[in-house]
Amino acid sequence: MLKVETAMATAIEEAKKAFAAGEVPIGAALFHKKSGRLIAVGHNKTKALNDPTWHAEMEVIKKACQSLETTYLNDYVLFTTVEPCAMCATACAHAKVGEIYFGAYDVKSGGTINGARIFNQQTCHHKPEVYGGIMEGICQGLIRDFFKEKRGVGAVPS
Amino acid sequence: MLKVETAMATAIEEAKKAFAAGEVPIGAALFHKKSGRLIAVGHNKTKALNDPTWHAEMEVIKKACQSLETTYLNDYVLFTTVEPCAMCATACAHAKVGEIYFGAYDVKSGGTINGARIFNQQTCHHKPEVYGGIMEGICQGLIRDFFKEKRGVGAVPS
Repeated sequence: MLKVETAMATAIEEAKKAFAAGEVPIGAALFHKKSGRLIAVGHNKTKALNDPTWHAEMEVIKKACQSLETTYLNDYVLFTTVEPCAMCATACAHAKVGEIYFGAYDVKSGGTINGARIFNQQTCHHKPEVYGGIMEGICQGLIRDFFKEKRGVGAVPS
Repeated sequence: MLKVETAMATAIEEAKKAFAAGEVPIGAALFHKKSGRLIAVGHNKTKALNDPTWHAEMEVIKKACQSLETTYLNDYVLFTTVEPCAMCATACAHAKVGEIYFGAYDVKSGGTINGARIFNQQTCHHKPEVYGGIMEGICQGLIRDFFKEKRGVGAVPS
């Protein structure tokens, strides 16, 4: 049985790994809907891999499809700490992800509820169910702390 | 000096490799704009790699960023045989690709001129120059032949 908060906590742990590595702290995890089994986790590694496409959701989709030997994830649920961008949302459509739960809304770079609103496009071949705002405070807080640290706000003066 | 037809021919060669491998025949290539130097080539490998995100453009962006040790491709030109989908177009925005030349327009699955029209979104952080319809006949012809073959149209009756 899949519990939303427990599943999102797994994605948040991934986001924390990204934070610790100096990457934008976004994490994701994919679970089998019926059994609640964890299939794959991932987090942003765009700097580490010199790959601007290596978002948390992309890593999870790749890992899951390879491990399950399929390109269709209809029976699976993706948890991600931040609203997927248009790249990741379209990847979810390509992979036919069943459901998406995300944490923080992203007015600037989101492509699911904001921006391109990929699943609302008439040409979108697959529209997962989408639920936003799950444990939003923690997910948004990680992003805020990361960029505050990068800007040096709150740093101890030397 | 970069010649459009020669550059697109390189992408078409990649599309033919995809065709031969039973993958949707789309190919791509990235060149340095000023020198015309070829940086990376790629083609669809979604079936071979069990990876629904492994489009030609994604492979090229990944390879180029890794080889150039950057995540910014402002000085580079992407050639692809078919209009990029919303995933690939957003990846081009993330990677700040300078210019995109594509072959066939894609009313059903395109996300550049059609569908989500990624670079026309107000939230799009980077808008490459885009030129469509380059050697359109050949690029479209490859796709048509591929799906005709898949549907068995024109097959010798057994």
